[in-house]
Amino acid sequence: MSPNRQSQIKVTDDQLKIFLNCSEVFNACDSEDIDFILSQIKTYHYDNETVIAHREDVGDQIRFVIKGSLNIVATSLDGKEVRFPPIGPNRWVGWISCFDIQALSHDWVATSNSDILVIPGTAIRKLCTKNPDLYPKIMAEINRQFKLLMSWTEFVSLHSLSARACMLIHILAQISATPMDNKPGWLQVDVTQEHLASFLNLSRQTANKLLVGLEKDGFINIGYRKILINTAYLNR
Amino acid sequence: MSPNRQSQIKVTDDQLKIFLNCSEVFNACDSEDIDFILSQIKTYHYDNETVIAHREDVGDQIRFVIKGSLNIVATSLDGKEVRFPPIGPNRWVGWISCFDIQALSHDWVATSNSDILVIPGTAIRKLCTKNPDLYPKIMAEINRQFKLLMSWTEFVSLHSLSARACMLIHILAQISATPMDNKPGWLQVDVTQEHLASFLNLSRQTANKLLVGLEKDGFINIGYRKILINTAYLNR
Repeated sequence: MSPNRQSQIKVTDDQLKIFLNCSEVFNACDSEDIDFILSQIKTYHYDNETVIAHREDVGDQIRFVIKGSLNIVATSLDGKEVRFPPIGPNRWVGWISCFDIQALSHDWVATSNSDILVIPGTAIRKLCTKNPDLYPKIMAEINRQFKLLMSWTEFVSLHSLSARACMLIHILAQISATPMDNKPGWLQVDVTQEHLASFLNLSRQTANKLLVGLEKDGFINIGYRKILINTAYLNR
Repeated sequence: MSPNRQSQIKVTDDQLKIFLNCSEVFNACDSEDIDFILSQIKTYHYDNETVIAHREDVGDQIRFVIKGSLNIVATSLDGKEVRFPPIGPNRWVGWISCFDIQALSHDWVATSNSDILVIPGTAIRKLCTKNPDLYPKIMAEINRQFKLLMSWTEFVSLHSLSARACMLIHILAQISATPMDNKPGWLQVDVTQEHLASFLNLSRQTANKLLVGLEKDGFINIGYRKILINTAYLNR
């Protein structure tokens, strides 16, 4: 991993408002609150894969992926890297860290060529103190993360390898994928074969065989550093 | 599993107040609020292992284990039962379900001879609307569950079997164990060998070999339908 290189970038308020609209929490804010939030946002660009928060840090901020992705990377007791599926564009994450004074249990890693928005936890808490109706909306965001983590736990416990590969695609569709403008009905996930194999906790060869099986079924399309997902096959 | 047999039991208000004290949320309530909560509590006894909430239900209540334990049991895509470590006495669970209108993704199962308190979600939400300072305290409770679920995810991804057995004991100490009055420094977990093997996703023989190894190290003590944990070995 290359040294932490970040540069702050400029994004227009109109653009930022579109990003804020991706969360029900901000949708429930009045224009005065939105102006306050706009004054607190910082946007960063990362040229290379960068650890943007270390496991010893206190989180205390929410992040939004504009471009690229955010990865949660834990290191298990036996020194193995445990990588969760990447959080893809147009998603807000980290709500729980704004109400938790404990240190993170994992690193947050931004992928190369990513643009990430940051809002400090103090701003979120200030908003909630002023407008307590936001709390249940934040809880709804946390619930969503919680359920995904439950799915992930079920996923890693699955015995059948083909069921695991299939469930992985469903999880990626939820947290990593972006709709494709030029291919309606398909989602794109930027992910390497190596990472797909590590999510599956399998060798690249075995993982590849499973994914090629799903490709033959028409569920996915495997590309270079990406996979495409056919939404017609989701929720079947 | 035997048919759902539950009977409501009586618990004195003084006893209930001690149970409420086990959560920082109720510790922050004034006496008027506590009286309201006391009026909402129901207590149930289960003779046999009983599914007390099905995965199609909406949760919308918090529960407290007085005696016995609560188990989260999911069924994976390939039909396998995925069992999480039991939630042992003196713990409040289910906060997230009070702010989530979606159906559960798993069953809640009370073990045989268990006593469980229930407070409806409406009561919790009413309390929060009246006193928004409770929201961050509830979020702290949810955070704790979230981190445990993260640990569980890391746990199931561990390659080294002995590291997994060791981490399982740490997780059981946190969510399942009760201090032993007659054996200071030791915790008791009521759990069968069969369930320990299923948490480890291993055969009973392999699981047993690992646990006997930990017993030889002095970390645990294996009994009939229970294990004892030496707290001196935790956080090492």
